[in-house]
Amino acid sequence: MLEVTLLGCGGGMPLPTRYLSAILLQYKGRKILIDCGEGTQVSMREINSGFKSIDIICITHIHGDHIIGLPGILGTIGNSGRQQPLYIIGPEGIKEAVAAARVIAKYLPYEVIVIENPQTSIEGLTDQLKGQVIIETLEVEHSSPCLAYKIYIKRQPKFDVEKAIKNQVPRLLWNRLQKGEAMIEYEGVTYVKEMVLGKQRKGIQVTVVTDTRPINQIIPFIQKSDLFICEGTYGSLTDIDKAIKNKHMTFEEAATLAKKAEVDQLLLTHFGAAMTDPADYKENATSIFEQTIIGEDHYSIQLNFKN
Amino acid sequence: MLEVTLLGCGGGMPLPTRYLSAILLQYKGRKILIDCGEGTQVSMREINSGFKSIDIICITHIHGDHIIGLPGILGTIGNSGRQQPLYIIGPEGIKEAVAAARVIAKYLPYEVIVIENPQTSIEGLTDQLKGQVIIETLEVEHSSPCLAYKIYIKRQPKFDVEKAIKNQVPRLLWNRLQKGEAMIEYEGVTYVKEMVLGKQRKGIQVTVVTDTRPINQIIPFIQKSDLFICEGTYGSLTDIDKAIKNKHMTFEEAATLAKKAEVDQLLLTHFGAAMTDPADYKENATSIFEQTIIGEDHYSIQLNFKN
Repeated sequence: MLEVTLLGCGGGMPLPTRYLSAILLQYKGRKILIDCGEGTQVSMREINSGFKSIDIICITHIHGDHIIGLPGILGTIGNSGRQQPLYIIGPEGIKEAVAAARVIAKYLPYEVIVIENPQTSIEGLTDQLKGQVIIETLEVEHSSPCLAYKIYIKRQPKFDVEKAIKNQVPRLLWNRLQKGEAMIEYEGVTYVKEMVLGKQRKGIQVTVVTDTRPINQIIPFIQKSDLFICEGTYGSLTDIDKAIKNKHMTFEEAATLAKKAEVDQLLLTHFGAAMTDPADYKENATSIFEQTIIGEDHYSIQLNFKN
Repeated sequence: MLEVTLLGCGGGMPLPTRYLSAILLQYKGRKILIDCGEGTQVSMREINSGFKSIDIICITHIHGDHIIGLPGILGTIGNSGRQQPLYIIGPEGIKEAVAAARVIAKYLPYEVIVIENPQTSIEGLTDQLKGQVIIETLEVEHSSPCLAYKIYIKRQPKFDVEKAIKNQVPRLLWNRLQKGEAMIEYEGVTYVKEMVLGKQRKGIQVTVVTDTRPINQIIPFIQKSDLFICEGTYGSLTDIDKAIKNKHMTFEEAATLAKKAEVDQLLLTHFGAAMTDPADYKENATSIFEQTIIGEDHYSIQLNFKN
């Protein structure tokens, strides 16, 4: 089960009533954090999530509302006792931004490894996520280099007893191959996990798209997501001129992407500070794509593998 | 009247229940901010103070809990429409830290002028504060270079009619000299403000000491402050070993400084995250120095010139 929590749903500036948009993904006790504005670590404390098991921080872009919380959370992760390397993925400029954050967070008891604008998919990274998670990015269209993220939780194929017997795999290796060991040498014979596992099964796909105009390349990228988390900086098409000028989206535009890409659910976030109650604009999205959820701080959803 | 507000009173890390320690001084519509941890700008929004009139930001030291909010507040000050230069004063390292903050807050509509470890007193800086405020610093003893601050609000001497007449100052110059013009040339004669003003009057003195051990040099620096704002990271002398190790103070140590320096009032802040209710430890301070106030987020005090 993958748990997705909106740590905040505001864009632009932190408000007393709304944290900045950041997303926490929790899977088998490990965490991936997407964006980290000022206050993100406080929001994490409010949900008592802990900091030590954050393995990867994905930054969409180097604007204050998405990254200012980074030096603070790096320090707090250090105080939590982490010693394992932590990975930060981000767009062009992320290495410079992390180096700047490290001027404040100089001494950390763990290594920080920065991956700048990866153009191929990334699998695992830490020991705990290896074989479990694939991360892909897409360059989107904002006023600074910006990445959309696809987080794919792999589902292990079922164990296939008949196949294991047919392939003459010794019983004492079944469990290890089923648990994910790719290859075992035993009594001079090589056994691979495919000899005991059934066909591939669909995993869980979450996509995060913020901040950007709704460019066409987003559609294949988010296709068939279980959850598509998208910015909705403006609630209504009446603000389309501002959306175009500031390179953001309206609720209608986000919903249109969701519809075209046939995602399961759309979760809107990154609401402009001028929008007091985003729920007032819900129909602008649901009239286009019914399965739209209007995000709130600490809104949480659990996603399971489907049969 | 000088208004002093604790924007937060926490040390170490931002908590859901306590902002990080930062202090806002407001005088004649202008603002001086002392320290700026993560969330300081949110706390400022809660008290509706506005951002445009922040003329000076004083940073005590380059630890995350005192400076991480800087890039965010610089951006927010920019959004508020400020065009006038803004001054940042800080210890050794502040230029590097501000340069790092500017990696995030790249484009600002005003100039940022950084003053690193000034070892002489600073007067005014902006047009509005000129002749009104003197800032002094003292290097204190923490685990990184750290400055204590003395903010002195000057009180204009009274207008002395007899003196003005005796010095043959033309009546039409009285008002200008009284309002602070240092020197006026008029019909070939030079008139200086001292020709119409009475004797010096005591201003308002606020001192801020955080984070440090209670070194002896602090006593003359804070002497006779109207308000001495001091860290109280630990509530009780039972934590003295931690205080020494981490270069902080206990309530007793802060109160002893206040007593020795004969300040009017002591305001304790920068409480360690482990201290749930600092008021529980109040007596540890008041038994040494009675006029002790235990700080709270948004605690505000107005200080007036004394007759």
